[in-house]
Amino acid sequence: MAETSIADSTTGRDGAILAGLPAVRQWQEDFYRDLHRHPELSHQEHRTAGLVAEKLRESGIEVREGIGGTGVIGIIRAGEGPVVLLRADMDALPVQEATGLAYASTERAIDASGNEVPVMHACGHDVHVTCLLGASELLARHAEQWNGTVIALFQPAEEVGDGARGMVNDGLREAIPDVDVAMAQHVLPLPAGVVGTHRGPFLAAADSMRITVFGRGAHGSMPQAAVDSVVLAAMIVIRLQTIVSREVAAADTVVLTVGSIRAGTKSNVIGDRAVLELNLRTFDESTRTSVLNAIRRIVIAECQASDSPEEPEFELYDSFPLTVNDDEVTGRVHDAFARHFGARLHAMPQGAASEDFSDIPTALGVPFTYWGIGGIDEQHYRRAVQNGRVSQDIPVNHSPGFAPVIQPTLDTGTEALVVAALAWLAP
Amino acid sequence: MAETSIADSTTGRDGAILAGLPAVRQWQEDFYRDLHRHPELSHQEHRTAGLVAEKLRESGIEVREGIGGTGVIGIIRAGEGPVVLLRADMDALPVQEATGLAYASTERAIDASGNEVPVMHACGHDVHVTCLLGASELLARHAEQWNGTVIALFQPAEEVGDGARGMVNDGLREAIPDVDVAMAQHVLPLPAGVVGTHRGPFLAAADSMRITVFGRGAHGSMPQAAVDSVVLAAMIVIRLQTIVSREVAAADTVVLTVGSIRAGTKSNVIGDRAVLELNLRTFDESTRTSVLNAIRRIVIAECQASDSPEEPEFELYDSFPLTVNDDEVTGRVHDAFARHFGARLHAMPQGAASEDFSDIPTALGVPFTYWGIGGIDEQHYRRAVQNGRVSQDIPVNHSPGFAPVIQPTLDTGTEALVVAALAWLAP
Amino acid sequence: MAETSIADSTTGRDGAILAGLPAVRQWQEDFYRDLHRHPELSHQEHRTAGLVAEKLRESGIEVREGIGGTGVIGIIRAGEGPVVLLRADMDALPVQEATGLAYASTERAIDASGNEVPVMHACGHDVHVTCLLGASELLARHAEQWNGTVIALFQPAEEVGDGARGMVNDGLREAIPDVDVAMAQHVLPLPAGVVGTHRGPFLAAADSMRITVFGRGAHGSMPQAAVDSVVLAAMIVIRLQTIVSREVAAADTVVLTVGSIRAGTKSNVIGDRAVLELNLRTFDESTRTSVLNAIRRIVIAECQASDSPEEPEFELYDSFPLTVNDDEVTGRVHDAFARHFGARLHAMPQGAASEDFSDIPTALGVPFTYWGIGGIDEQHYRRAVQNGRVSQDIPVNHSPGFAPVIQPTLDTGTEALVVAALAWLAP
Amino acid sequence: MAETSIADSTTGRDGAILAGLPAVRQWQEDFYRDLHRHPELSHQEHRTAGLVAEKLRESGIEVREGIGGTGVIGIIRAGEGPVVLLRADMDALPVQEATGLAYASTERAIDASGNEVPVMHACGHDVHVTCLLGASELLARHAEQWNGTVIALFQPAEEVGDGARGMVNDGLREAIPDVDVAMAQHVLPLPAGVVGTHRGPFLAAADSMRITVFGRGAHGSMPQAAVDSVVLAAMIVIRLQTIVSREVAAADTVVLTVGSIRAGTKSNVIGDRAVLELNLRTFDESTRTSVLNAIRRIVIAECQASDSPEEPEFELYDSFPLTVNDDEVTGRVHDAFARHFGARLHAMPQGAASEDFSDIPTALGVPFTYWGIGGIDEQHYRRAVQNGRVSQDIPVNHSPGFAPVIQPTLDTGTEALVVAALAWLAP
Repeated sequence: MAETSIADSTTGRDGAILAGLPAVRQWQEDFYRDLHRHPELSHQEHRTAGLVAEKLRESGIEVREGIGGTGVIGIIRAGEGPVVLLRADMDALPVQEATGLAYASTERAIDASGNEVPVMHACGHDVHVTCLLGASELLARHAEQWNGTVIALFQPAEEVGDGARGMVNDGLREAIPDVDVAMAQHVLPLPAGVVGTHRGPFLAAADSMRITVFGRGAHGSMPQAAVDSVVLAAMIVIRLQTIVSREVAAADTVVLTVGSIRAGTKSNVIGDRAVLELNLRTFDESTRTSVLNAIRRIVIAECQASDSPEEPEFELYDSFPLTVNDDEVTGRVHDAFARHFGARLHAMPQGAASEDFSDIPTALGVPFTYWGIGGIDEQHYRRAVQNGRVSQDIPVNHSPGFAPVIQPTLDTGTEALVVAALAWLAP
Repeated sequence: MAETSIADSTTGRDGAILAGLPAVRQWQEDFYRDLHRHPELSHQEHRTAGLVAEKLRESGIEVREGIGGTGVIGIIRAGEGPVVLLRADMDALPVQEATGLAYASTERAIDASGNEVPVMHACGHDVHVTCLLGASELLARHAEQWNGTVIALFQPAEEVGDGARGMVNDGLREAIPDVDVAMAQHVLPLPAGVVGTHRGPFLAAADSMRITVFGRGAHGSMPQAAVDSVVLAAMIVIRLQTIVSREVAAADTVVLTVGSIRAGTKSNVIGDRAVLELNLRTFDESTRTSVLNAIRRIVIAECQASDSPEEPEFELYDSFPLTVNDDEVTGRVHDAFARHFGARLHAMPQGAASEDFSDIPTALGVPFTYWGIGGIDEQHYRRAVQNGRVSQDIPVNHSPGFAPVIQPTLDTGTEALVVAALAWLAP
Repeated sequence: MAETSIADSTTGRDGAILAGLPAVRQWQEDFYRDLHRHPELSHQEHRTAGLVAEKLRESGIEVREGIGGTGVIGIIRAGEGPVVLLRADMDALPVQEATGLAYASTERAIDASGNEVPVMHACGHDVHVTCLLGASELLARHAEQWNGTVIALFQPAEEVGDGARGMVNDGLREAIPDVDVAMAQHVLPLPAGVVGTHRGPFLAAADSMRITVFGRGAHGSMPQAAVDSVVLAAMIVIRLQTIVSREVAAADTVVLTVGSIRAGTKSNVIGDRAVLELNLRTFDESTRTSVLNAIRRIVIAECQASDSPEEPEFELYDSFPLTVNDDEVTGRVHDAFARHFGARLHAMPQGAASEDFSDIPTALGVPFTYWGIGGIDEQHYRRAVQNGRVSQDIPVNHSPGFAPVIQPTLDTGTEALVVAALAWLAP
Repeated sequence: MAETSIADSTTGRDGAILAGLPAVRQWQEDFYRDLHRHPELSHQEHRTAGLVAEKLRESGIEVREGIGGTGVIGIIRAGEGPVVLLRADMDALPVQEATGLAYASTERAIDASGNEVPVMHACGHDVHVTCLLGASELLARHAEQWNGTVIALFQPAEEVGDGARGMVNDGLREAIPDVDVAMAQHVLPLPAGVVGTHRGPFLAAADSMRITVFGRGAHGSMPQAAVDSVVLAAMIVIRLQTIVSREVAAADTVVLTVGSIRAGTKSNVIGDRAVLELNLRTFDESTRTSVLNAIRRIVIAECQASDSPEEPEFELYDSFPLTVNDDEVTGRVHDAFARHFGARLHAMPQGAASEDFSDIPTALGVPFTYWGIGGIDEQHYRRAVQNGRVSQDIPVNHSPGFAPVIQPTLDTGTEALVVAALAWLAP
């Protein structure tokens, strides 16, 4: 997985362009550590966007800023030819980093609800940004090797599901040439150095729902005068588990997670409300509808069981589209990856995660593909896998311990973007 | 319940001293509204303590400040005779007021955990302070009517259970003459104008416990890689209900309330821990021990059921003593109340609430009594009571709607303190 | 506790009559073992009733049989004087005996639902029957020592709550002379040799409820086509715990037990209904009503949460009255017990158990008292009690291990009946 | 779907043989109604086996009886050629029929646990038996049309998973010629007239588990002396739901059903044990192992939470293998079905049901395929399907309302067996 292997397996244009990787790698690693140390919440990616624009300009690339808030676009023109859009997302999560890394984040920020929260690149968007900047520089510095246009799109607010729509609604189509194909990638808990593709439905539709249920407040010593909102909320959490276990066919892929529960402020006061925030992943619309209906049915009934004095409130937010990789696009990228990565190319199973990336090609009316790259140290990964199962000491995306190893992760993500783009760009 | 009735029913010293009530009432009502509008959390009673000291001085009473933090003591000396300690508590609660009153609180403060919270006098300590200031003024202005010493003690931090201990530990005994008897009162959801006494065990022992349980964080779409701390916390809440329903004899009075639950920060991230805060009320030590053991047993087992990666943490705090009213003291006060209040004197049942008042007489080695006064408008109360049951539109202590009617509540509380003190003070 | 102590402490009539106890004891112990070995379910007490009638006749007592099914009455006339009714209940329970005793029951019977069940005297009615037969013989053989009438009433079907009513409805009043006072006793997990009285409300009102909830059947592999009645029933059981833990004041004595749950017949078939049988104990009518309403509210709401296709069904049965011991009757019996039993007389706390005995005096319009006797070996009891708490290896009524030690249990119960009756019977 | 359509679409050997279907149909429909009216539990298929053997003999087929208990084999020899095994299962289920059909079952039987239960052909094995008898007669009467051997195997006890193994262990291999290929079919809630095939993993592995958990018995009024086995069992049911909802990846197909729960015999007695029977469906061994481990972990922990006095007991039973259809066999059958059934041939999705059929070919070392046929009236089916979802008024296998329409179900199942067998038999 050293760079010599790249030279070995890659010939022609790809090899010529990727020969520049060692130079890129020199700034990429520090750039990545800096991004990781300074994560920013969705819609607050000001520092990140500034660094992205600066680096694009250093690479001699034309830049558009401020699209959809903090969105940044680099446009690399190399004459007539296909227009390939490559996208990276920039935002981070309200997670307290626990990686123990020298470059771990200690940042805190005020979230959309006004609460101060820790911030961490627990989803690896710092990898995505760094790789796309590296790929852009390689493509820009070797523009003589290809014809067409590459659009490097740096998107805000993927985690809350409206960053892609935000760029679309803020004039994305007008800001760039007509696109032929769109691509994006995500770093995952696979061995670093690996890439993986998947045809067809790849990532789930997602919806978040905020549910507020009402009790009746009282002193903690007088439950008989209260309707206990903590007990009500707990019952709802428990009952909601039965949707996946009992109401959904086993072959139907659904995830329903109550990510947050909060009720009460003091041990001896029964509070008058509880707030649950849940997230739903589905792979078809009729299942989505029936699960959303079941959630409402259960919450309303549990409120009645508690004799709740007010109707519960439901607020749907952070909706993500289904991500369905185009067959032909995925096939062409897969073939290019096979030539370049050899055995490092894996088949990816369907995943329950979600992405708003597809909102961009959908709005532009173009096909797309979305692939995965690994981020876990290969030795660590091998030790953790036993009998075909990954043991639980591999941190996954969104966990406080998720931090890709820097190499070969950055190299692989950078190579993948270059190789995939070149599969479409005219020679 | 008009003041003429007082004149009618009260003769001798009591009548002579209480004849000053109309004058006191003139400042008391505004003073009360101001306190209600500006509540302060436990250990933060700086403004309140300042107003108390100022008013004591206006009444010509000797003042000691800063005992146990914000504690204030007024000493009214009237020659040789018994020393009676009267106590009021000053702190308020992190509750969002919903009384709709013109003088409702809109205050917010930073609590001990560093969170900003609403603040409200949802437990009526503003009534206690105002009545004790009024009674002090009456006793001070008519000191020629009695012999002995009255100590008016204004205590911080009753709600968190360490304000009384704090004053004791900060030299209370040395700051005041030797006490013979101690008394305190609490406003309750009874008809305003009513007072109630109870001999023997009156209020429960109370303990709060903070329980932290650990899951394993992951993206919300990958529950299989997580241990879901929200589900774990909900199961614990549900399981804890079985302690009172199944492990405690029906005749044994126990309340176990989980007042607060919080886990996770985002709908689509499975957080790695949950925090529960619960409150336990018991009336004997062996029950207390066996319930605390049952709580630990259940929490530990539920963590095992969830395959939790870490042992749960238990922190006991805000422990309140059992309040056992002295037979003789209560009897003498009861007789004095019977003479003064007539049919307005009720028998009070045992209550599941708790108080740290008794830490003071216990430390001083003196007997005490603690009584209740009503705060609900009598017409409202009558409408709400049907078939001997109070319907649920009477707000109880600690609820967002709890606000005593100003009169006859303040009059009654002021009279009760004067009458009870005089039952002990030499003529 | 040997018989000499009886002679020591008892003089006069009581002593003269109880001097016959050793003779009675000779048949009582074998009679008891036989009853214990051959228990009969409620309304099936044919063998027991036959033995009772036979023994009464052997003692020269006038017998009435077949009142209220298997009810038996012995009438002992000794001239003019008060008429005292002493009652024992005869039925046993569907429990599989696990005492390991040589005379343990291995009986099985068909219950009211048509199921074959094990049968056991797990509630000690065999003790009651044996003691009342002994006391009757003693009183009959020494009728020259007293004046009046003793009615020894052997009642069926106490466990299902309708045996007393059954005798009343079947002409009890006409079958016997006018009664002045009624008495009954129960063996309890106290040290054998002890008796205990209680004035006022002693035993709870009880109600049983059968709840049928409906799911939708399907193969176990297709939960999405089913409404899972097992999950629904489990949720209801869990939710019902919150009535006692949250809806009832801590000082209010309520027990709500789901004694039986059954749903489904096979591991891989989702059944279409579940049946719960619960039992409720309360000490006042308004609490009883509000708890019954809460049960219905919770069951209906949980059915809605499960999307149950049919309304649940509720059937109330086995209702028992509140048992309130008459002050004067209890006082007189207490004094007689104090003279006879000395330190072996204990105060009994209120108990959550229930009895239909009071239906008889209520129907006859006469006062009554009901007391307890111990049945646990004293050494065993002492070892089991630590720090004032009884450890859990003392089997309680209705448990598979409940078996009173034969002595001094039978002696004590026999003496208590004689002493209590004589407290009323004219000399 | 009338027989003319068969003639239209089927030519050559198939057509010649199936021309006999009208004659077969004359006895098949009555035979089916009789079987349906007289279902027999697993291992009790004596009457059914007798009828099968009698009918085979009437058709002139060589019969072997009593293999693996009630197993019956018919052997149809037609010279040299491939040996095709066709299998039908004969047993019924403990379900109370609620179809309202004139030929509905009212049978009751004693199950393996000694309980009397209702019995119903709720899984359609009566269809399987009738179709295989019909196909056997057609093949036997037209043996001149083909070469080889057909083995018509009628298996007991499929529902409990050991009927196929039982025949294997009882000398099946020696009782029949060497088999080349094995086939079986199942009637499903698809439109009658339809057949469906599936290559690869088709049906789940299944395991049943009986779990006994222990409480401590007591009278229902003394929960503090008991460990409540009903509450414990309910908690386990609820907790087990979290395995599918939280511990299994959404894309992994797992069904965990608690089909039966029973605890307690009486509303006012807390029983000392509860029995749960659950069924697990999985599609790979490592998932199966981890779910079985999770079940044990949860049950043990919930027993600890309840302070259960004894370790729980686990008994695994009724284990079914994974059913993986052979690619080549399925392909050849699929092609033959396509020629014969045209548009009535559907692709079948993977199902969560299980079968022990594959134990036979696995033991014989031969490839197999297993297909589905529809049994729901086509008009009814169309009305019930809306937006691609089947509404819930279509009764599914194992439900009390499951009853295939007689035609075209029997015709289709008979034709499918003949056509599939002929795809292998030499001309």
